[in-house]
Amino acid sequence: MERGSSFRNIVIPGFRFAGLPAGIKKSGHKDLALIYSEEPAVVAGLFTTNRIKAAPVKLAMEHIVSRKAQAIIINSGNANACTGEKGMKGAREIITCTAKELGIPPELVYSSSTGIIGRPFPTGVIKKALPGLVRQLSPLSLKHAASAIMTTDTRAKISFRQIRITGKKGTIAGIAKGAGMIRPDMATMLCFIVTDIAINSQALDAALREAANSSFNMLSIDNDMSTNDTVMIMANGFLNNPLITTRSPYLANFKSALNEITYDLARMIAEDGEGATKLIEVIVKGARSKSDAGRIALSVANSMLVKTAVYGRDPNWGRIMAAIGYSGIAVHEKKIDISLNNVKLVSKGMGTNREKAARTALLHKNIIITIDVGTGKENARALTCDLTEGYIKINAHYGT
Amino acid sequence: MERGSSFRNIVIPGFRFAGLPAGIKKSGHKDLALIYSEEPAVVAGLFTTNRIKAAPVKLAMEHIVSRKAQAIIINSGNANACTGEKGMKGAREIITCTAKELGIPPELVYSSSTGIIGRPFPTGVIKKALPGLVRQLSPLSLKHAASAIMTTDTRAKISFRQIRITGKKGTIAGIAKGAGMIRPDMATMLCFIVTDIAINSQALDAALREAANSSFNMLSIDNDMSTNDTVMIMANGFLNNPLITTRSPYLANFKSALNEITYDLARMIAEDGEGATKLIEVIVKGARSKSDAGRIALSVANSMLVKTAVYGRDPNWGRIMAAIGYSGIAVHEKKIDISLNNVKLVSKGMGTNREKAARTALLHKNIIITIDVGTGKENARALTCDLTEGYIKINAHYGT
Repeated sequence: MERGSSFRNIVIPGFRFAGLPAGIKKSGHKDLALIYSEEPAVVAGLFTTNRIKAAPVKLAMEHIVSRKAQAIIINSGNANACTGEKGMKGAREIITCTAKELGIPPELVYSSSTGIIGRPFPTGVIKKALPGLVRQLSPLSLKHAASAIMTTDTRAKISFRQIRITGKKGTIAGIAKGAGMIRPDMATMLCFIVTDIAINSQALDAALREAANSSFNMLSIDNDMSTNDTVMIMANGFLNNPLITTRSPYLANFKSALNEITYDLARMIAEDGEGATKLIEVIVKGARSKSDAGRIALSVANSMLVKTAVYGRDPNWGRIMAAIGYSGIAVHEKKIDISLNNVKLVSKGMGTNREKAARTALLHKNIIITIDVGTGKENARALTCDLTEGYIKINAHYGT
Repeated sequence: MERGSSFRNIVIPGFRFAGLPAGIKKSGHKDLALIYSEEPAVVAGLFTTNRIKAAPVKLAMEHIVSRKAQAIIINSGNANACTGEKGMKGAREIITCTAKELGIPPELVYSSSTGIIGRPFPTGVIKKALPGLVRQLSPLSLKHAASAIMTTDTRAKISFRQIRITGKKGTIAGIAKGAGMIRPDMATMLCFIVTDIAINSQALDAALREAANSSFNMLSIDNDMSTNDTVMIMANGFLNNPLITTRSPYLANFKSALNEITYDLARMIAEDGEGATKLIEVIVKGARSKSDAGRIALSVANSMLVKTAVYGRDPNWGRIMAAIGYSGIAVHEKKIDISLNNVKLVSKGMGTNREKAARTALLHKNIIITIDVGTGKENARALTCDLTEGYIKINAHYGT
């Protein structure tokens, strides 16, 4: 399997991309992206479980039952959430105009928005930019689309893998955005994935759910769930491989490549968490079930006290113990081991007095908290970042 | 009903208090408190639901089935949690020595600890200070006990009420500590309440549960639950009133006074939240049930994005909508009204463009977010504080 997460000029046959500044963001940065497949593609999607959903999410959720898509138009700088009938009308209009501009049926066009909630949706501004956006479509512009979906992100997030199927090399590539308002319930940010591999909608859906469960659903920055979260994947079949179905021997390969991409992207989101100086990976071992392990991992990853301690290079393992204890999962204090990177801090529930070594380990940018709860054989891992003054600064003044 | 929350030299007949610096805290501040009743009192208690419990909490939970107490010894500066057999032995020793010093049976003595988790418990230091502590016992020293239980608190927290029962004036007074590691599950900090009113254990227990449910259990600072949380009430009957039982007409009076005291103390804890500059009260109206209203209120009170927005004086109501939406309670966007102090920001799910007035309202130190979800008639309120760089500073370096 070939892999990549830093940008290279990757081409996914049959797909073209564009990203430009339409004028939605005051900063003048790119804020409008388009993903286009030369032929209709099979699509699968996961959407926020928030009861308050943005207009484009409502439309996409209705739409996706058709399992077909040819284009996704995405804007940043405005969430089109809590915008009432006008917002719904705007989202519909953007879809219609994009379809017209591309010369394809509107049923095959999806839209997605991210940015501030409750501001009037700038339908006109976007419409005006559409012809130029379509003109810019290029097989080499994935990076521009990745930039145009950013909000408080400090860098674009792209990951791809290539796998061999009956001698042919297929590609899966994804872009994502997200740095705050992120918590682990369903898809927790925007992520768009494309592939030239032929796969049917059942298999694609199953693969996407599995991938999201161990990546985006195990990712927490501030435990605030957005109204706009969306993960979509389009498979256009340009590879001409034998169709992957739920019974295909190639599904496992496809799944593991997709799992890696979504974990890559989730990791990039945690690394780029608002104000973050450190990436934190919480690995829980020895739990009775995968779900128990996951709940413990997320409980620790969500703890503001653990996150501030990592920031302060303070090996305060008592906070990790407290977060394990309130996860809701039955644990036995005397069976718990905790390590920080490779320094064992807690053995059988008691401190090992290795705080000095742990303080040195905390100099690293990547922190791995390994917890063995000693009650079973199942594992899980969660991703987060440290909590710093930077998060406060960004979020105390984001709306203004 | 007479009331007070700022300190006055309140006396509760039959109770004596002490607080002094025993040398557990490096700062030299008071760190050892004693609450003593001249006669055995009826006791009720609520303890952390964290699976990892401090040694004194484990002992108190076994102990309290007897429903009798005469003294509580409390130390700050060390949590005696994750301290293994030595910690348990230390907690037992402190109880035995306190009982000996007071000349009462050890079964009537409870201990409680708060501070850093996982540090060896300073049994010797505390034992050495006990004789001096007992000598200092005085009916006028509630304030010293309130100071001695503080950790990152910036001020002592005391509240009392006086109620008339068949012509006699009874007193209920409480002290509390807590500024961080606070989340709404069971009692969420240390709180000790004493009263001279005669009340049986069933009625006392019911009153304490009810009071905690609408105060400490609706309070969130950082959503981290401690291993040491404890709320206890002792009733010594010195008032000689007709015994209050669950059927007594005076139980309602007792309950409302106790509710007010615990809400007062919860409010003081939120006001003194680590790094807080503002107290935030979230009032949810028009919900289908009290429990729905409570879950929505806590979802908003727990939102880091709402808390940072209040800090930044940013009337970003989209974050409030998002937090309502992910509370797990069924809501209808189009029925939701939101006000910030008296400025209506959202009407029927849409912004009212009153951001400027809201920004002025956010200059106040006390912020009330009122949410009407428009689906029923039930209300609830939750308490929290804003999230600032101060919280990060305190918690990045607390253990060191």
